Amino acid sequence: MIRELTIRTPGQGLHEITHDIRAVVREAGAREGLCTLFVRHTSASLTIQENADPSARRDLERWLNRLVPENDPLYTHTAEGPDDMPSHIKAILTATSLGIPILNGDLALGTWQGIYLWEHRRASHHRRIVVHIA
Amino acid sequence: MIRELTIRTPGQGLHEITHDIRAVVREAGAREGLCTLFVRHTSASLTIQENADPSARRDLERWLNRLVPENDPLYTHTAEGPDDMPSHIKAILTATSLGIPILNGDLALGTWQGIYLWEHRRASHHRRIVVHIA
Amino acid sequence: MIRELTIRTPGQGLHEITHDIRAVVREAGAREGLCTLFVRHTSASLTIQENADPSARRDLERWLNRLVPENDPLYTHTAEGPDDMPSHIKAILTATSLGIPILNGDLALGTWQGIYLWEHRRASHHRRIVVHIA
Repeated sequence: MIRELTIRTPGQGLHEITHDIRAVVREAGAREGLCTLFVRHTSASLTIQENADPSARRDLERWLNRLVPENDPLYTHTAEGPDDMPSHIKAILTATSLGIPILNGDLALGTWQGIYLWEHRRASHHRRIVVHIA
Repeated sequence: MIRELTIRTPGQGLHEITHDIRAVVREAGAREGLCTLFVRHTSASLTIQENADPSARRDLERWLNRLVPENDPLYTHTAEGPDDMPSHIKAILTATSLGIPILNGDLALGTWQGIYLWEHRRASHHRRIVVHIA
Repeated sequence: MIRELTIRTPGQGLHEITHDIRAVVREAGAREGLCTLFVRHTSASLTIQENADPSARRDLERWLNRLVPENDPLYTHTAEGPDDMPSHIKAILTATSLGIPILNGDLALGTWQGIYLWEHRRASHHRRIVVHIA
């Protein structure tokens, strides 16, 4: 089964989508299988991270923003603004696709794992994620 | 087929699990297919790296430890110790899931490729990996 | 279906392989499914990036070359030359495998997404990629 989700991100940062993906898994009705996520953009990405303490996600964002700052004189690809090139770099350092097994009718996530859509642009965007379940 | 493996890591570093995954592939008996690995933690990750010269793995560890040092004043998520936040960052920079095709009844790894569970915490941990074969 | 492709890279940099992968998807004839790519090397990797403006790819290469320079005194794994250890590091920061859903008989790539084989060695190489379609 394949579903395409459109997620509106509120702007730069880690946006949890565990609930949205879980709904697709339930709809598919699979007891056991594989759920593959794919984000159809090059300035947003996917990651699995701690879903408990928000300070971990905040530190992740700040750390990555420091590693890949805006207005780096190295960038020549600047037509779409100062957050354009950093977005592409952050996307290649994280994930465009994720494979998550399905066990007992649910995603086989660990206790502290959540699925996040990482918006790398400053502005809110509509992001399309393809969910494949087999 | 799905199997959950529990691997005891001896502490921080790259811990080879090729043999463990290969055993699951043999048990499944598939001649051709796809083996997906998923680690159920946010402070350990997966990577495929050179299995020959141990100096390559040692340099990888030292390089990543320098890029993501402990006690960085940026961190606010420090409740679990100085190796907590670096572990989360290292996890997002490497892989939480891997898809490896199966060819002729074996993992389609290149000659120099090994599968590694990367423990990012200093202490030994029991880590759970879900292996999906289809 | 599984196919192994051998791609000759012209040297260090992002080398587009979207066309090669699309040809395998067409040969498989699947209307809907999952295409998994796996590169059988530890000094080359896979990434999905912007296929429009070449300046984005050039900046990605320059940025990664600056983050992981040659001749870093940290390296001890230097037997194969100054581009050996940086290649392994760049490989772990990007992807060894990618899962791309198939929709309407084609890869479900976004409008601006291309699939790239990232050659991390300076010299031209023959790189093997396994394509699994199910």
